Amino acid sequence: MNASLESLPVTTRHSVSSAVVPANNTLVALATDITIREGILEIAGEQSLYHGGTLPTLRVAWRLVGPTSAPVVCALGGISAHRRVCLTEDPRQGWWSEIAGPDRPLDVNQFRILSFDYLGGSGDTTGPQGAEAFPSISSYDQADLLARLLDHLGVTALHAIAGGSYGGMVALAFGERYPERVGRLLIIGASDRAHPMSTAWRSVQRQIVRFAVDCGRAKEGLQLARSLAMSTYRSSEEFSARFNGPPVLDGDRFVFPVESYLFSRGGDYASRYRPESFLCLSESIDLHRVDAGRIFVPTSVVAVREDQLVPLADMRAMVARLPVARLHEISSIYGHDAFLKESEQLRRIFAVALEGVS
Amino acid sequence: MNASLESLPVTTRHSVSSAVVPANNTLVALATDITIREGILEIAGEQSLYHGGTLPTLRVAWRLVGPTSAPVVCALGGISAHRRVCLTEDPRQGWWSEIAGPDRPLDVNQFRILSFDYLGGSGDTTGPQGAEAFPSISSYDQADLLARLLDHLGVTALHAIAGGSYGGMVALAFGERYPERVGRLLIIGASDRAHPMSTAWRSVQRQIVRFAVDCGRAKEGLQLARSLAMSTYRSSEEFSARFNGPPVLDGDRFVFPVESYLFSRGGDYASRYRPESFLCLSESIDLHRVDAGRIFVPTSVVAVREDQLVPLADMRAMVARLPVARLHEISSIYGHDAFLKESEQLRRIFAVALEGVS
Repeated sequence: MNASLESLPVTTRHSVSSAVVPANNTLVALATDITIREGILEIAGEQSLYHGGTLPTLRVAWRLVGPTSAPVVCALGGISAHRRVCLTEDPRQGWWSEIAGPDRPLDVNQFRILSFDYLGGSGDTTGPQGAEAFPSISSYDQADLLARLLDHLGVTALHAIAGGSYGGMVALAFGERYPERVGRLLIIGASDRAHPMSTAWRSVQRQIVRFAVDCGRAKEGLQLARSLAMSTYRSSEEFSARFNGPPVLDGDRFVFPVESYLFSRGGDYASRYRPESFLCLSESIDLHRVDAGRIFVPTSVVAVREDQLVPLADMRAMVARLPVARLHEISSIYGHDAFLKESEQLRRIFAVALEGVS
Repeated sequence: MNASLESLPVTTRHSVSSAVVPANNTLVALATDITIREGILEIAGEQSLYHGGTLPTLRVAWRLVGPTSAPVVCALGGISAHRRVCLTEDPRQGWWSEIAGPDRPLDVNQFRILSFDYLGGSGDTTGPQGAEAFPSISSYDQADLLARLLDHLGVTALHAIAGGSYGGMVALAFGERYPERVGRLLIIGASDRAHPMSTAWRSVQRQIVRFAVDCGRAKEGLQLARSLAMSTYRSSEEFSARFNGPPVLDGDRFVFPVESYLFSRGGDYASRYRPESFLCLSESIDLHRVDAGRIFVPTSVVAVREDQLVPLADMRAMVARLPVARLHEISSIYGHDAFLKESEQLRRIFAVALEGVS
């Protein structure tokens, strides 16, 4: 497989984005040599997966944004993240627009930002299609796929991987497997394995989707599952502040403010993602287990005290096992979602973590 | 309605339980004059409810256990609790057998223990039947029903109400409405209103059940909803300790230890409770709002630091508003379920709370 990689066709689109983009309500200069490259890597031949399954072939949709010769940082997010990290036409399309971009904690004037659509997801990388069975996907499989992508792009080693949530798990898996191909890891809200309480919540989400698929109403199941997931991403403090109002009578029943919010967001999600992909990547989180003691890449870990999904105790325990690690504990009402929102707190941490060896 | 109560027929069964019952693996003497009375109170005529609905008539299934002339303590539990608190033929039938009984924190040799099946529940009190619409039920409605029951039983005033979870909400509602009819309140894991994060989780549970009802598969929906509920009743510390093992392959997919547990327990529940009752009482929790500043009954409050459903901050805030209250903060890996399990920690608190005015 590896031998044939270099000869595979590379679909790459080049474009130069506008020289000035708004950020934080101010105009921020964009380096003039920034290019946005996107492509699909096709890997021919049967691919073996960590949990024993196989795929007849693989395609990986990737995107690389930044100054032509800058060091490459791979940015990976939650299971609904994708290759479009920042500098998208509509900033809302970039899943990390708050954190990555010109003059952001992950500065696109300083680094080339690489990402890809996850294997098994709803993007343009290989994923489940309809009712057809799809194998279980490990965070190690995503790491392997990233290594193939680096070969393909001619990147010997990444300057860093910055990963939040599932992306942090993939970063840890990559660090264990390919220590020579990444200079440092920056892990936010992800541990060496999923916590059983989080697994409980995700197991229910998956069972909801399977049940709804079985009832022929998959989209509604995905809406419900995402509604539940949303309630685990934030902190109870935030919900308390935002959804403090009384219920309203809607026809014959009371609807609570938090309920309207969750189901509205769940509905948006269900219109954009595939139920089968949700099942695949949600399971992949729970299957994630890496050996922290064998991750020799210098690692900066950001733990959020209010994170319901990844308890502080788990983060501390992982850091104690990591050979070269530094723990940053922060507080955020955004809980698990802090990696998407806390641009000011993360700015300082990114500066230290991406600079030298932490 | 009140005028006719005294003349209503009382269905009462008397029985004397065995003089010696096992508790904590030792034989504990049971006072010889203990009687177990059970009955149904029928209240004729249209009943108006707090949220504006009506019921054409009411029946209330109650149970009173203890020495004939002892002070009466009303014991109220979560939405799946019922009139059988303790001293049932099979101890597993009593929902509070760990806490109430001979030589337990709520000592049946010292107090007569009263309880009833909740309005809107799955027991023998009036509740929803099948697809027929049932009105929204308030914790104030349960309190009113308890007041009618006291009239019926000739109990001028309760020595105390000890309530956990939803039962604590009902106790608070009773304390606000009928301060002259109860000497003290003992509230565990319940606040003056539901927390929006808990409402979020319960809203998803109810939507799962409604969806499944709509699919003609109500029981499966109830199983799923209860599985989710179970994951909110305990602490992440307990789940971490209990469900630490790897997943097992079951046919074509991985099943996680916590998942097996939740769905097994959810299935048990779905076989014993009615989906419509679950919807009714789950909503009743979220509709609960009492005015803590107007509860003039001396109140002992037990807050569990690990309770995910009723955060410590909410308990502290309520205690600050209660005119006469004392807060006991405890730690328990059982989280919200601590009121069912922590017999040793609760023993000391019950002794103080039930003795004088706290």
